[in-house]
Amino acid sequence: MKIHNFSAGPAILPEEVLRKASEAVKNYQDKGLSLIEVSHRGPEFVEVMERARQLVYELSGLSPNEYEVMYLQGGASMQFYMSALNLLSNKGYAAYVDTGTWASNAIKEAKRVGRVEVVGSSADKQYTYLPDIVAPADADYLHFTSNNTIYGTQYQEFPEAKCPLVCDMSSDMFSRPFDAEKFDLIYAGAQKNIGPAGTTLVIVKKSALGKTDRDIPTMLDYKVHASKESMFNTPPVFAIYVTMLTLEWLKENGGLEWIGKINQLKKDSFYQALDRNPMFKGTVDISVRSGMNATFLLEDEGLKSHFDAMLKEAGISGLKGHRSVGGYRASMYNALPLESVHVLVDVMNQFAQKFG
Amino acid sequence: MKIHNFSAGPAILPEEVLRKASEAVKNYQDKGLSLIEVSHRGPEFVEVMERARQLVYELSGLSPNEYEVMYLQGGASMQFYMSALNLLSNKGYAAYVDTGTWASNAIKEAKRVGRVEVVGSSADKQYTYLPDIVAPADADYLHFTSNNTIYGTQYQEFPEAKCPLVCDMSSDMFSRPFDAEKFDLIYAGAQKNIGPAGTTLVIVKKSALGKTDRDIPTMLDYKVHASKESMFNTPPVFAIYVTMLTLEWLKENGGLEWIGKINQLKKDSFYQALDRNPMFKGTVDISVRSGMNATFLLEDEGLKSHFDAMLKEAGISGLKGHRSVGGYRASMYNALPLESVHVLVDVMNQFAQKFG
Repeated sequence: MKIHNFSAGPAILPEEVLRKASEAVKNYQDKGLSLIEVSHRGPEFVEVMERARQLVYELSGLSPNEYEVMYLQGGASMQFYMSALNLLSNKGYAAYVDTGTWASNAIKEAKRVGRVEVVGSSADKQYTYLPDIVAPADADYLHFTSNNTIYGTQYQEFPEAKCPLVCDMSSDMFSRPFDAEKFDLIYAGAQKNIGPAGTTLVIVKKSALGKTDRDIPTMLDYKVHASKESMFNTPPVFAIYVTMLTLEWLKENGGLEWIGKINQLKKDSFYQALDRNPMFKGTVDISVRSGMNATFLLEDEGLKSHFDAMLKEAGISGLKGHRSVGGYRASMYNALPLESVHVLVDVMNQFAQKFG
Repeated sequence: MKIHNFSAGPAILPEEVLRKASEAVKNYQDKGLSLIEVSHRGPEFVEVMERARQLVYELSGLSPNEYEVMYLQGGASMQFYMSALNLLSNKGYAAYVDTGTWASNAIKEAKRVGRVEVVGSSADKQYTYLPDIVAPADADYLHFTSNNTIYGTQYQEFPEAKCPLVCDMSSDMFSRPFDAEKFDLIYAGAQKNIGPAGTTLVIVKKSALGKTDRDIPTMLDYKVHASKESMFNTPPVFAIYVTMLTLEWLKENGGLEWIGKINQLKKDSFYQALDRNPMFKGTVDISVRSGMNATFLLEDEGLKSHFDAMLKEAGISGLKGHRSVGGYRASMYNALPLESVHVLVDVMNQFAQKFG
């Protein structure tokens, strides 16, 4: 049976990526060795790292003269601390928007480093909307989360600010065309939209570095990793290889324009069905609904076991909401085919016919 | 042609581990999904993490009541800073032994945290020996590196100290039986002896934690990771799975007693051949030669291209010395079969016959 994988992360990857990754673990380029058992300084992996970095420049349109592209470890959670350590000055302050659990964790870690002003929060309504903000011009940077994986909200337009922008794009990185030059720093755990768990993409403007006047531990210093092209120490070889394959798949199929259109079709298809169907309800403000993580509830929670059984029968996997909020969450990342959304919509319609 | 993989890390893994890992990337447990595209909170991966942690307790003989076992990210280099952050108190000091590049990097990072005393160093002779030390009783801990990957020295017996012991065991972890209870903290990047690049094993004594009186950033706090059983945030799924497979392979074949005997045979076989052969010379003190990384030089560097050609013809890979020291390095980690050492020894003998 074909499985329709709506997991929120680690999440679905393109079939051809998984096939190539599986082969590389067994025998890389027919050399009789696995990719994961050769030196990261050897020609095989150096080429992978080079290509993985290059693809980010190509997809984002950013120039290597102005931006550093790095593959680091520790997830976006490590970046919560590391971004502040590298960009928040001792005398200045940083502005943060609190739009969910991860944004809130980013604030917590930044406060360990320096002064933080929360310029907007949707905590008062369980993060079901995105707050209006007055972005300060004098802040070291404004930090926001482009897509809130747990709650299912997403910025349709990025906030305008006169200070530098820093963004956690973990769950909608490279899901649509965007103006990357607006940002001083973008970070994204790979395991949502651009690869497997185990590496985090960090893109930082060169001119933003070296301004904090702070002693930064080696492994937490962007300048160190950038100067060594993400090879200061042994990188997470497999995770970077699979990310490279995924970005290659994206580029070869048409890049951000192409995926943006498909993701819009998936989004429209799902939410139109949701709004038509009286058995279900969305959980967030319509204007900020996420195209990546669609959160919804049953009108009648008593029918949960019936709906779950129908999902299972249709081969739908990973639809459970985050453990902190419950309900359902359909994650529709880049690699999820439109067909899978159609299957989900069909099940929702059948459910309404049967129990409505 | 069979390849004999002497890479220093990422390094050789058992064939059956690579076969299983390759299959898991394609289709995990015949469920129609890859292991790397399902939630880390789902039953598939939770079981992997549980087993990977359990195997460390079983192989080390340590009790879960007294020790925490964690799989973290960032490599041993991240542990250089993190270990000091968690164990070095504000008022006390830590003692370090400087036996090579990594030990020296550990010292550098610890100095950012607190007071460090270098109680022994072999820097004066290019790290070709292990210094005698007087281990202080009043230090917060004594840090040393059990095996020096670059230089090819290894502690045959661990230093005795009245203070707690902290050890970077990256390149000889689980290569021989040892008394793990002697240590407050052991850390090891997986990619040498116990798995692929992308995760670091950390074993810490529970009673050693919470003593520094320091605010520790969330992702750098052992207590956080321990309390969440290495699932505070998304772990490096693939790297942990392959480490689990490798530790399972080790345990099923006979554990540390078994591998200790095989590694001794490999070590004896190589160094006996080295000492008999006038065309080669070792680079370090005989009494501290490493069983993991055997470093050696040609007596006549002019014959290098001839020796390299013979290595290539025999299918020997990864024998190049670290870029900082040159020469040759035969890494003989757990997964390297005795047969591969015999092939290398044969090539060395043939080389001597031909050019000697």
